Amino acid sequence: MKFGGTSVADLERIRRVGRLVAAEVATGKQVAVVVSAMSGKTNELVAWTDGAGAAAQGLPPSDDEYDVVVASGEQVTAGLLAMTLRNMGLNARSWMGWQVPIITDDAHGRARIDDIPPENLARAMDAGEIAVIAGFQGVDRQGRIATLGRGGSDTSAVAVAAAVGGACDIYTDVDGVYTTDPRIESKARKLARISYEEMLEMASLGAKVLQTRSVELAMSQHVPLRVLSSFVEPGEAPGQGTIVCDEEEIVEKRIVSGVAYSRDEAKVSLFGLPDTPGVSSKIFGRLADANVNVDMIVQSHARSEGAANMEFTVGKRDAARTVEILRAAQSEIGFEDAQLNEDVAKVSVIGVGMRSHAGVAKTMFTALAEKGVNIQVISTSEIKISVLIDAAYTELAVRALHAAYELDKV
Amino acid sequence: MKFGGTSVADLERIRRVGRLVAAEVATGKQVAVVVSAMSGKTNELVAWTDGAGAAAQGLPPSDDEYDVVVASGEQVTAGLLAMTLRNMGLNARSWMGWQVPIITDDAHGRARIDDIPPENLARAMDAGEIAVIAGFQGVDRQGRIATLGRGGSDTSAVAVAAAVGGACDIYTDVDGVYTTDPRIESKARKLARISYEEMLEMASLGAKVLQTRSVELAMSQHVPLRVLSSFVEPGEAPGQGTIVCDEEEIVEKRIVSGVAYSRDEAKVSLFGLPDTPGVSSKIFGRLADANVNVDMIVQSHARSEGAANMEFTVGKRDAARTVEILRAAQSEIGFEDAQLNEDVAKVSVIGVGMRSHAGVAKTMFTALAEKGVNIQVISTSEIKISVLIDAAYTELAVRALHAAYELDKV
Repeated sequence: MKFGGTSVADLERIRRVGRLVAAEVATGKQVAVVVSAMSGKTNELVAWTDGAGAAAQGLPPSDDEYDVVVASGEQVTAGLLAMTLRNMGLNARSWMGWQVPIITDDAHGRARIDDIPPENLARAMDAGEIAVIAGFQGVDRQGRIATLGRGGSDTSAVAVAAAVGGACDIYTDVDGVYTTDPRIESKARKLARISYEEMLEMASLGAKVLQTRSVELAMSQHVPLRVLSSFVEPGEAPGQGTIVCDEEEIVEKRIVSGVAYSRDEAKVSLFGLPDTPGVSSKIFGRLADANVNVDMIVQSHARSEGAANMEFTVGKRDAARTVEILRAAQSEIGFEDAQLNEDVAKVSVIGVGMRSHAGVAKTMFTALAEKGVNIQVISTSEIKISVLIDAAYTELAVRALHAAYELDKV
Repeated sequence: MKFGGTSVADLERIRRVGRLVAAEVATGKQVAVVVSAMSGKTNELVAWTDGAGAAAQGLPPSDDEYDVVVASGEQVTAGLLAMTLRNMGLNARSWMGWQVPIITDDAHGRARIDDIPPENLARAMDAGEIAVIAGFQGVDRQGRIATLGRGGSDTSAVAVAAAVGGACDIYTDVDGVYTTDPRIESKARKLARISYEEMLEMASLGAKVLQTRSVELAMSQHVPLRVLSSFVEPGEAPGQGTIVCDEEEIVEKRIVSGVAYSRDEAKVSLFGLPDTPGVSSKIFGRLADANVNVDMIVQSHARSEGAANMEFTVGKRDAARTVEILRAAQSEIGFEDAQLNEDVAKVSVIGVGMRSHAGVAKTMFTALAEKGVNIQVISTSEIKISVLIDAAYTELAVRALHAAYELDKV
């Protein structure tokens, strides 16, 4: 059972989590619980590290010490939940990353889990103890605290489930995975099941219900995954939520399962590039060296002979840096002008049914054209089509696509 | 160097601590820094544990989980200070109790340090790294986080100094140890030196500048100890503070070094006790079994034959429980009535010179009598005399004694 920040935001909510854990234990299952920091706490801690790092005019924070500070939030929640469970008469104890141990690499601030030896947890759980595990944190091979990056508690939970051979229920502030964001489209429906691949695309493309890496890990380790709500009243059951599973386990397949959107990207345009081999590798090689992830890419030829334009998207927080890096190499790359547009949104339709159905793209482009939405960049994979549009049209586009694929119909 | 909660209360103060550490490093010394939680943080964390424990109608908090929660405060400060030092161009890293390791017993919430193997710290410091150590916390032999009780960071600092063979400077919000509380007597003077024994009595008797156990440890381990102010402006030196040392190192001895007071005690009175052997052991045996510490005791005979009264003091937070325990055993002990008076203060004069000077008590009683202060209970040791008085007279008594022993004169 994994509970995120809003589910453990205060003592009353932690008691509610306690009741959900008690109900699960009452079914005879062995239970491990992974918790995030209380909502808002991580932001407070990060702000302090910013302040401590900002002392020397913009030096980056020392990441291993950043981890020491930020990991304390999950420590607090784990202790409080263990106390709460004990006071409900249950047998529980907290586990920090270094106690389990959850062994990570030393990429502080965005570490990856290398290994979770299951012996300690298994012994405690076999003895009837509920294991309350601090999410988001682990310990590197030098014995220093490491954190997994924002949303890392989902990954902690899936990794623990994989280590001890269990299923993973992600409790959150929504009661499952929806066909799209219900705040934008009130006709959005909760999905009973979704495949790992679709969930992975949904998460990558902007649906914030699960962290991408946690879905990858669940898929590769075959961990049964479920998303359900922690916001239930005493005595009320949390409902069935959404099961994330193998494609084969989904009987009724739809062509499109969901519509996702993201406003976290910015578009970089390079004009007047030499139309010669190697220019792309110069551009994207430099960005890769600087750890900038590039997402959608389109290359077009200008009217004048021998010149090309290139457009691509990067994460908004990398946008300004990307332009700086390229301008510093302007003469070597040979472009005439670089522009940045942060006022864009990526809207995507996702569905494993696309593999076997033609016409999905046509439906998308037609629906958007009917609403006068101009498509700036397109990218596709086997199971999704993404378009980059003017950010002002985001909600309009999401609703148009939700209707076009009849996602409001059962 | 040890910095308490008010010295690291926010990022600006942590930077000030950073400058003090840098100045110390610049003198060529190897430096370990022990830090408390940011002022107010421990109270916030304790309140949460109260809430989590209070869920089940007054069960005591599960102490090992209490420690998990509360220890997080020092973790945050240690990380932030290490970051701050690095951003000043210094080589620093944080150490949690379990990383050093600071090995404690398993008396959670009030653990005692068993051992600090010095190898890890010594290796890091020999390599030129400033060790920033989370105070107040350690790890028990089961690998669980343990805390040392309120004010435990002083003890952490002395224990680390003893382990690595160093001296211990306690930086606080005052610039040394005073003859009495300057908030009560403006003529209080800072002492250049005070003996361990006197400091121990001062701390036990209410002077809050150092935790009692830290002084005991410094005395038994011969750790040179100094109290000085962290509240200095950039470029300003912290001054000489007060050196706590062996009696032999103090050239100019005074009969009385200081006047301490405490309002943390309550007086329990038992009337109409049988005047038979064994009654005291019944009373104090029961209280010892319940972990109630008894301080001052006086027994008196009532006018009626064969009946006695007994008065003693206990800590205020144990007061109500003490009376309950005694009333439950009323018939067995055989007293007629029990009364509780929380409106009392203990005022003490302390000085190693008492060993060789008569008349110290007489001066005390005369000074108090002249101001009309009634003495309820008296207790003495080789180097101190304490009296219990009506709390309303506390300041008056402190000032009268400060003048009577001429502590305002150099």
